[in-house]
Amino acid sequence: MADLLSDEEIEAQLPADWERDGDEIVRTFEFDSYLPGVGFASGIAGIAEDAWHHPEITITWGEVEVRLTTHDAGGITEKDTDLAARFNDAYE
Amino acid sequence: MADLLSDEEIEAQLPADWERDGDEIVRTFEFDSYLPGVGFASGIAGIAEDAWHHPEITITWGEVEVRLTTHDAGGITEKDTDLAARFNDAYE
Repeated sequence: MADLLSDEEIEAQLPADWERDGDEIVRTFEFDSYLPGVGFASGIAGIAEDAWHHPEITITWGEVEVRLTTHDAGGITEKDTDLAARFNDAYE
Repeated sequence: MADLLSDEEIEAQLPADWERDGDEIVRTFEFDSYLPGVGFASGIAGIAEDAWHHPEITITWGEVEVRLTTHDAGGITEKDTDLAARFNDAYE
């Protein structure tokens, strides 16, 4: 099982444009319309399935909010920061 | 613009398995694993785009929560109950 990260480790490892929100890390990805956000959500869901680490993804018009936490560790681990970085790569 | 529904109209028109939550109607659709839920979310997003009425869709493992409201009317209208019924059809 992945180890919980310390506050300092989270701050150091948090990928660009992600923020910590308690036991989760969160980023809102922005899009010019609805379906591009839906497509992005599907794409990162595939990455998540590949990593077997499943975020909460909320789709609204022009925005996709992604929240990551490691439930079995009870907080934020490298599984979260690593997957967040892969999601960033998919967005660029 | 669609007219706001009265409490009685909402109760009468709410499709199966949907609940009212203040100014929104909500249903959680259930799946046996992650990607089937993701695929369902993409499918109903296409229906939403077709209707030009965009729900909030939240994907987690095995569940897709859908929330509908009519922002420009400030509450629940037939646009919401009609689209909810179409989402139910897509789930069956």
